[in-house]
Amino acid sequence: MYPEKELIARIRGRFGEDRSLAGPGDDAAIVNLPEGVSLVLCSDLLVENTHFRRSLHPADSVGFKAVAANVSDVGAMGAEPAYFLLALAVPDDLDPSWIDLFFDGIDEACRRFGVRLAGGDSSTAERVFVDVAMAGHVPRDQAVGRHGAQPGDGVFVTGSLGSAMLGLQLLEDGIRDHPAVHRHLYPEPRHRLGQSVRSRASAMIDVSDGLSTDLAHILEASGTSARIDREAVPVAPEVDLTMALHGGEDFELIVTAADLPGEFEGIPITRIGEIIEPDPRGRILIVSGSSEQVLEPQGWQHFQ
Amino acid sequence: MYPEKELIARIRGRFGEDRSLAGPGDDAAIVNLPEGVSLVLCSDLLVENTHFRRSLHPADSVGFKAVAANVSDVGAMGAEPAYFLLALAVPDDLDPSWIDLFFDGIDEACRRFGVRLAGGDSSTAERVFVDVAMAGHVPRDQAVGRHGAQPGDGVFVTGSLGSAMLGLQLLEDGIRDHPAVHRHLYPEPRHRLGQSVRSRASAMIDVSDGLSTDLAHILEASGTSARIDREAVPVAPEVDLTMALHGGEDFELIVTAADLPGEFEGIPITRIGEIIEPDPRGRILIVSGSSEQVLEPQGWQHFQ
Repeated sequence: MYPEKELIARIRGRFGEDRSLAGPGDDAAIVNLPEGVSLVLCSDLLVENTHFRRSLHPADSVGFKAVAANVSDVGAMGAEPAYFLLALAVPDDLDPSWIDLFFDGIDEACRRFGVRLAGGDSSTAERVFVDVAMAGHVPRDQAVGRHGAQPGDGVFVTGSLGSAMLGLQLLEDGIRDHPAVHRHLYPEPRHRLGQSVRSRASAMIDVSDGLSTDLAHILEASGTSARIDREAVPVAPEVDLTMALHGGEDFELIVTAADLPGEFEGIPITRIGEIIEPDPRGRILIVSGSSEQVLEPQGWQHFQ
Repeated sequence: MYPEKELIARIRGRFGEDRSLAGPGDDAAIVNLPEGVSLVLCSDLLVENTHFRRSLHPADSVGFKAVAANVSDVGAMGAEPAYFLLALAVPDDLDPSWIDLFFDGIDEACRRFGVRLAGGDSSTAERVFVDVAMAGHVPRDQAVGRHGAQPGDGVFVTGSLGSAMLGLQLLEDGIRDHPAVHRHLYPEPRHRLGQSVRSRASAMIDVSDGLSTDLAHILEASGTSARIDREAVPVAPEVDLTMALHGGEDFELIVTAADLPGEFEGIPITRIGEIIEPDPRGRILIVSGSSEQVLEPQGWQHFQ
């Protein structure tokens, strides 16, 4: 067994000091080019039967999500997503209509998010592999990482949480015609919002692994804890609090800042708590009335 | 059967007009950022049993070649390779020593070519998948594509050709201790040479699929033919002319230019012929004494 975490730890151990990252663990790397621009680079690998099933996920959703996940990662740094490369491996006997539909999804994501396919590579394989590597850009020193949260900052969340997880559950139950399923299949990254709050944000991350896990990433990188108001968490319709706290792939943003406006382009921005000094009990304390509990990150295994 | 060519044709048909490429078919894409720099983006996908075999290719060679192939692609545009993302999928039961050796090769390539690992993604899979996506940079409008060759230009080749193919054959015969095997496993891209001749070159490409195939790419993109002097082709030691004309993965450069120096940092640069007006008989005419024949591109299937 070679779990992803061990693999990542091994890579960090070897290349960590030599890497030009904003902070270790950011989803996207920030690199400075001599010409005076900061590039934001990230990639997202989708493997059939690990991240999606051909029987469950329409091909256009696979293409769309591969692009959207990267747009979200770039946007969560406050950067503007621009170009991407696509590496695609498909089985020899794959129905060409799958490929066509896959590219419908890529195409739709390009138009919706203003990004462009710049090139890539292809091969054959027993299972479908999709790797999208994206380059975005941001004025130098203006990218937002995970490590800048300060005690006293508010913790803000965009939109509402949990519907992507509900959508996956519904999809597994054979239900397709539901807004949450649509949100699971065709997520809306908040890259424009991320750019708009860039100058105010002390730290930012997108919710790909769930609020509890992704907020913990900010807190670990920043060396702080957070106190979250349970009643303030924006729970999506039909979703229970557990899904909202731990469900992944919502692609909303968690932003820490002194203050933020209440909405951006119709997307609510909700203050759910505040950054506090590191607490010996845990990274995230969740408050409901007079009770205060530690919220453990539960991770999110995407699809298995 | 879904061959790579059909896949690429399908992608080009859908995205060709919308792509920001130097010319259709370049190995690397050139994109201009608002900040006034041209980015060169490329990726190279290595799939176990298609591009390499774990029983035949040492893990450090797989890592080294994945980086080197991209360094070569960026260098063939006259650009400076800089950062790369790595997507790696490995089987659950893979021996951790394979991963360590793989990263030895990545590390060696980073040090030798002056590039840096910026991030990436990982997953599990039944076979090893490696996708390296690289970003390089070049002053705006100075990148060299495939499409600028003009009748009267000389056709130049760096180094010598055919040893990577010989090396693969020797490796399949169980021979490891031979310079050609080393060259197959640990190729030396000519990126510094590519940058140094950038201002003189009208077109440039690296020899990844063989001289006959890669020169034809330049000629097709430029709408020209070429006359090649058979005796001038720099054939590597122990290699026959067929290997030199059609063998892939030498990662030498083919450059068209009015003139070039005879060497760069000890690497010979050989004039092997000239660009001519498009000839109805074919793209490449090969001349030996008084006989003139059409040289058909034979492609290169890497490893299968």
